[in-house]
Amino acid sequence: MSKVGIIGAGTWGIALARVLANAKNEVTVWSAITSEIDELASTNCHPKLPGVILPDNICYTKEIEYVCREKDFLIMAVPSVFVRSTVALAAPYIDENQIVVDVAKGMEPETLYTMSEVILDELKTVCPEKHIHIVAFSGPTHAEEVSRDMPTTIVAACRDMSIAERVQELFEDTCMRVYTNYDIKGVEICGALKNVIALATGVATGLGLGDNTKAALITRGLNEISRLGISMGCNLTTFVGLAGMGDLIVTATSEHSRNNRAGQLIGQGYSAGEAIKKVGMVVEGINALPAALQLAQKHQIDMPIVKAIDAIVNNGKKPDEAVRELMARKQRSE
Amino acid sequence: MSKVGIIGAGTWGIALARVLANAKNEVTVWSAITSEIDELASTNCHPKLPGVILPDNICYTKEIEYVCREKDFLIMAVPSVFVRSTVALAAPYIDENQIVVDVAKGMEPETLYTMSEVILDELKTVCPEKHIHIVAFSGPTHAEEVSRDMPTTIVAACRDMSIAERVQELFEDTCMRVYTNYDIKGVEICGALKNVIALATGVATGLGLGDNTKAALITRGLNEISRLGISMGCNLTTFVGLAGMGDLIVTATSEHSRNNRAGQLIGQGYSAGEAIKKVGMVVEGINALPAALQLAQKHQIDMPIVKAIDAIVNNGKKPDEAVRELMARKQRSE
Repeated sequence: MSKVGIIGAGTWGIALARVLANAKNEVTVWSAITSEIDELASTNCHPKLPGVILPDNICYTKEIEYVCREKDFLIMAVPSVFVRSTVALAAPYIDENQIVVDVAKGMEPETLYTMSEVILDELKTVCPEKHIHIVAFSGPTHAEEVSRDMPTTIVAACRDMSIAERVQELFEDTCMRVYTNYDIKGVEICGALKNVIALATGVATGLGLGDNTKAALITRGLNEISRLGISMGCNLTTFVGLAGMGDLIVTATSEHSRNNRAGQLIGQGYSAGEAIKKVGMVVEGINALPAALQLAQKHQIDMPIVKAIDAIVNNGKKPDEAVRELMARKQRSE
Repeated sequence: MSKVGIIGAGTWGIALARVLANAKNEVTVWSAITSEIDELASTNCHPKLPGVILPDNICYTKEIEYVCREKDFLIMAVPSVFVRSTVALAAPYIDENQIVVDVAKGMEPETLYTMSEVILDELKTVCPEKHIHIVAFSGPTHAEEVSRDMPTTIVAACRDMSIAERVQELFEDTCMRVYTNYDIKGVEICGALKNVIALATGVATGLGLGDNTKAALITRGLNEISRLGISMGCNLTTFVGLAGMGDLIVTATSEHSRNNRAGQLIGQGYSAGEAIKKVGMVVEGINALPAALQLAQKHQIDMPIVKAIDAIVNNGKKPDEAVRELMARKQRSE
């Protein structure tokens, strides 16, 4: 039995809270949105997980200090844009013997830091003397399915494999099968960039193209991301693994993915701005484009699919013309 | 302009005939089923490609000698079980300066030969003095979509890259973008074993499981096939490429895949025999199981998903129990 603090009460944080509480861990959930905490505490339900009844033994709090203090694990489950500010709030209460598990996926546009690097950077500012262990936790994991105990696999990544193994143990006897990986950077690059490829497959669907084109974009898209990652010191096996290929498949083939949906609208002729408005939520693939392009340039990696999506989204290029140009490039070897 | 003989008049052979004829090549199609040739010649349509009108410049023949003689390329497009017998018929008319392109996917159960090895073996028997070039041509390619000019990618694999490049050139200015690869064995292993994984994702769907489980099976399934392939001297990049990951994605996520459909029926409680009967066509994934298991044993590779599918199909194991056991295995690193 472990003590777990979950920072963030979105669908993913709550799905993890439920799984861990049902496995007899002591779980506390915090949110910056106080009405969210009130609703969870009074209803034992999350409005975006209809039909899922949360166990009684989850504790809800509005105090960041309370969710951090005396916990073995802290799960950082806020949207990527709020990771830095939330860590700043929590940092004074985080201890060296705690393991911070990040489930937010993304890259900070200004610094090109992955989320674990953002957390580390912020912790170092507030408490430079502490050495905190951070684990990236990422894979093909729709929260809706985990909250219904559907069999799910995920990667716990940390340079220190003994720490990754502690996260693996935490999820024993749950619906989640955890694989460890020491290539944390690779795991995080996958999570941050897969949405650009999901956007591309959405555009193909919006243009009325078929499964052949989508499979080509997913495969060659992962090839671009892998080449970038390898040039940054990451491992090919990570990109072929659950956090790479696995997560890309669920994101790029799911009707529920907002990136996929935004891409479809763009393929149908809507502008990127109109598509974002219609989707009504953050479209991470569009937000990830500047970081992807900067990294490609910095590491001198040719990323034709990423470039084509940028041309469509930011320079008004016609989607059908962009796809035609992708297919008409000089033929090459795999 | 090239002269192309297409041996086999199924949907894939005909889709390729149409693409190549439209690109101004001289195309001749042969089938062992004479009524098929009569219908194609009189209607310019294939019954399983409704709405697709074939160009007038395709020539149809019932003479195997005529489809072979004086062609630059011979495309072998018969089902894998008929490859050996068809090559035996064609061998006397095949010349050293011709390139044989195999599009059948599978493995001969008795010999564990891939299709290019079957072709080579049979050619050697009939004309031992000739040195014939064989190319494996494989990727995420629904014939229905290629016959409608949907953008499609594929791999042309040959140890001699100059030969693979000639196939690449043949498809220039068509809807097909061809990547070359010298790892022909890897490309063929992918094509032969992917259907076992498609069967597994079908079983998961039939059990009512979700996208997380399917992505896990696809990713970990490709991991099994890659480990086997690498132990046989193939390259990881092939398995992550279009003939591996790409083809697996279209097969395992498509409702049209008969392997996926058979798996769904098995997951719903039908026996393998009943599922095959209901699908009404060859279920390659079931046929590929003995070869997969023999190769796994020969190369000492642990293939838990393949083994679980075999236990369900051939030993009456309950699908839900098999999935539960897969998830409950000792947790490991990626």
